[in-house]
Amino acid sequence: MKLRDRVRTLVESRGFQGTIIAVIILNAILIGLQTYPSFETSPLLLAFDAVILSIFTAEILLRLYAYGWRFFTGAWNWFDFLIVVVSFIPSGGSLQVLRVLRVLRVLRLLSSVPSLRKVVNALIASIPGIASIGALLVIIMYVFIVACTMLFGPYSSDFRDLGASTVSLFRLLLGDGWGQLIDPVQEQLPWAWTFMMLYGVISTFVVLNLFIAVTTQALQQQSQEEPEPSKVEQRVLDELTLLRKEIARTHSDFPEGDAEGNSEPAPAHDQ
Amino acid sequence: MKLRDRVRTLVESRGFQGTIIAVIILNAILIGLQTYPSFETSPLLLAFDAVILSIFTAEILLRLYAYGWRFFTGAWNWFDFLIVVVSFIPSGGSLQVLRVLRVLRVLRLLSSVPSLRKVVNALIASIPGIASIGALLVIIMYVFIVACTMLFGPYSSDFRDLGASTVSLFRLLLGDGWGQLIDPVQEQLPWAWTFMMLYGVISTFVVLNLFIAVTTQALQQQSQEEPEPSKVEQRVLDELTLLRKEIARTHSDFPEGDAEGNSEPAPAHDQ
Amino acid sequence: MKLRDRVRTLVESRGFQGTIIAVIILNAILIGLQTYPSFETSPLLLAFDAVILSIFTAEILLRLYAYGWRFFTGAWNWFDFLIVVVSFIPSGGSLQVLRVLRVLRVLRLLSSVPSLRKVVNALIASIPGIASIGALLVIIMYVFIVACTMLFGPYSSDFRDLGASTVSLFRLLLGDGWGQLIDPVQEQLPWAWTFMMLYGVISTFVVLNLFIAVTTQALQQQSQEEPEPSKVEQRVLDELTLLRKEIARTHSDFPEGDAEGNSEPAPAHDQ
Amino acid sequence: MKLRDRVRTLVESRGFQGTIIAVIILNAILIGLQTYPSFETSPLLLAFDAVILSIFTAEILLRLYAYGWRFFTGAWNWFDFLIVVVSFIPSGGSLQVLRVLRVLRVLRLLSSVPSLRKVVNALIASIPGIASIGALLVIIMYVFIVACTMLFGPYSSDFRDLGASTVSLFRLLLGDGWGQLIDPVQEQLPWAWTFMMLYGVISTFVVLNLFIAVTTQALQQQSQEEPEPSKVEQRVLDELTLLRKEIARTHSDFPEGDAEGNSEPAPAHDQ
Repeated sequence: MKLRDRVRTLVESRGFQGTIIAVIILNAILIGLQTYPSFETSPLLLAFDAVILSIFTAEILLRLYAYGWRFFTGAWNWFDFLIVVVSFIPSGGSLQVLRVLRVLRVLRLLSSVPSLRKVVNALIASIPGIASIGALLVIIMYVFIVACTMLFGPYSSDFRDLGASTVSLFRLLLGDGWGQLIDPVQEQLPWAWTFMMLYGVISTFVVLNLFIAVTTQALQQQSQEEPEPSKVEQRVLDELTLLRKEIARTHSDFPEGDAEGNSEPAPAHDQ
Repeated sequence: MKLRDRVRTLVESRGFQGTIIAVIILNAILIGLQTYPSFETSPLLLAFDAVILSIFTAEILLRLYAYGWRFFTGAWNWFDFLIVVVSFIPSGGSLQVLRVLRVLRVLRLLSSVPSLRKVVNALIASIPGIASIGALLVIIMYVFIVACTMLFGPYSSDFRDLGASTVSLFRLLLGDGWGQLIDPVQEQLPWAWTFMMLYGVISTFVVLNLFIAVTTQALQQQSQEEPEPSKVEQRVLDELTLLRKEIARTHSDFPEGDAEGNSEPAPAHDQ
Repeated sequence: MKLRDRVRTLVESRGFQGTIIAVIILNAILIGLQTYPSFETSPLLLAFDAVILSIFTAEILLRLYAYGWRFFTGAWNWFDFLIVVVSFIPSGGSLQVLRVLRVLRVLRLLSSVPSLRKVVNALIASIPGIASIGALLVIIMYVFIVACTMLFGPYSSDFRDLGASTVSLFRLLLGDGWGQLIDPVQEQLPWAWTFMMLYGVISTFVVLNLFIAVTTQALQQQSQEEPEPSKVEQRVLDELTLLRKEIARTHSDFPEGDAEGNSEPAPAHDQ
Repeated sequence: MKLRDRVRTLVESRGFQGTIIAVIILNAILIGLQTYPSFETSPLLLAFDAVILSIFTAEILLRLYAYGWRFFTGAWNWFDFLIVVVSFIPSGGSLQVLRVLRVLRVLRLLSSVPSLRKVVNALIASIPGIASIGALLVIIMYVFIVACTMLFGPYSSDFRDLGASTVSLFRLLLGDGWGQLIDPVQEQLPWAWTFMMLYGVISTFVVLNLFIAVTTQALQQQSQEEPEPSKVEQRVLDELTLLRKEIARTHSDFPEGDAEGNSEPAPAHDQ
């Protein structure tokens, strides 16, 4: 067995993967602790952080060695690779804000725990099915964003430009701030509420249908998995088997195996 | 080939339709930019705007020529036609507010991109199925709007007339402002919250059922599409085919094709 | 034909019922107008109101005469009867608040329009199926209402007694006022948010399941309606019919009708 | 019949269980009344409370005697046992807050009323099926909690530490306080809204899928219960039965019972 094969066996072993998951969870806790000022510059935590980053780097290098260029054919491998690469971006001085990127390492749980990986894959797979209705929502929101900016902009800073209007209409979509955002405009434009109720009804209707598209798609996918034959279907099959056997007995050249071909092929026969 | 047929071939070509979609998207971006004061009167953007409007007008005229009066039999054609017509309404001086109608041109994406067109058609087709329960919601809201205006009107300007009550009950339906709207009334009428909780429960129940009506309708529609035969149904069919073939072999005058009549008709025979 | 039968034919005629629906809608508009102070005491509207009430009274009396005591066996008849009776409660002086009961007449639309009647019947029929999970929600809310009153009562007037806590927890259930209600308590009891997040998660989970109970029940009800045979089922049936016919031809005493007994019974025969 | 068996018969009788349910409901009302200061120290209510606690204690002791150690094999028995035990924790002086634990006795309704017990069992059984997607939600929230604390902590006390960020992101998830929480941060960090809209979209998408996971699971569970044969399936079965009977009549040794073996076994025969 070559070294490369041994390394592959190692990185695919349960023990190795379990260890990595444990390290990720430990890392998640450390990152949480470091948000407290008293721990932020603790030498112990910084040392721990360095050790964990070394482990992650070593793991990626091992996997790179084991799979070679094929490593980059898997989306999840890219995901793991980029999260580690990002950790080496310098974050001192004015770039301190980049330290927040370390929290992305927690997301490695999604690629490492098989059941989470499956859930995320399923979520991503459901996106194309809702792309059309999602695009419809985006177009409708864009129309209202532009219209609100043009109509309400002069009267309320919540709609002063496209960015502010986007934020405001997003809040309304989530059911927050209807009174707070629209009452000031209403004082100037008596029809403001009428216009925004139109937005409320249309956007709710589209979101509702977005939701339904996801549900029916999920149910459809589920029903495509072959179900067990129901009791009544089983009885039909049994009846037919009985019939076939009887005919096979009286007509000696009729095949005795079932129609699916699970039996030995019917022998050649002369009639 | 007549000129009219050539024009029709042109307007139905992928290239033509793709170009129109590109122009609509470009137009959407321009309209967004023009919401910023610095771009609003930019001569370049105004020129672009004129060019785009010319393209839209030319496209509609071409389609009008290609299809003649039949153009007006399609709802989507009317949609495109009206959006272009509306662009020629003068919007100077005191009618400046009408410039907002230009944003409707973005909606031409809905008629031009086939997948969006399909989604919008499906949404509109789902409306009749929820008309009854929608009417129920309107009736219940009307009763509460009138009752709130009569009962709470003297104590809170949020319920001072039918318009204000409509806005307030719409906000409550969206889950916004329960405390803000009802607490002032509660100080005068100790039973105000009890009354409005009744509104909360009833309206939520009806909206929930509105939602379910849409879902079950969507699922029903989906299940009406003929599914592939399941594995077990396929086995039943195979068994029956085998039986029929055997009988056909022993009773020489039995039809060999399947029951669907996919075979040549059974020949006339004497027994 | 007796007078009573003629009256019954009258009250069941499309024309009569359509007229009543028109009167109800007219009445709804009048009631809405009367919420404006300038119309409230308008002699014209008061006269209209008296005429409409006379029509409703006459209609109920006609139906009472036509059906006799059987009138009171229908829940919808009771509904119509009580709405008219309530209109005769005196509402002058200090009882002015009772004038709001007139708005209930709008609800007569629910009993008069057949499709609305059907929807309301369906909604009411869905209640028993969600009674258990609804009771669970009530019990859980009661526990939190009592606990919040005991724990938070001394620190916030929003939880000062059972009534105030009920209102507050109802608002939280609808997603309104989390910050406004809990932040003041949090200042005194640092664990208040932890406790209320428990409420948020549990109540959302139960409401979610309440919702699902309604949906699955609706789907189940729908699937109980006998569906058309699918294409593949139709083929199985056709195959079997063909088989039976063949056997009937060769075995002269086999019944030719289908298994459902849609044919004439097989004649007696000697073997 | 031994005493232990008699006690078991007693505690399993409808009358006994109905009495306990009545006592629990009475207790729930008393606990509600005691939240009012005027009733809190009422000697009558305190006496009632003592009587009810005695009844609960006696009931648990009877059940302990009736079932012996097997009592502790049922989760619901533990539930009832612990609720009674908790009532004996002293709650005077500084431990007054522990009196709130008495409200848990109301939850005994969940274990005593069979239909509620069934609903709660079903809810708990649905948890494993949504564990993966629930874990995904927790991981995504943790990443945003840490990131918000690091990024927004210096600018807003709503994100000052992990606890405060958890509360804030929980509020946002419930659709409350978007403007209130994010506007102050936005003034310092112009991209704050963009970042939080990402949170809004991702968390809503995951919650939506959590919801769908529960629904599809419930529907799947429901469809696993064997449905009645549909009309068309019944016809297929009837056709087959008819065929088998005919063959049985002409081929005397063919079994007459149906394929399910509901008939007497076919007798041995010589051909």
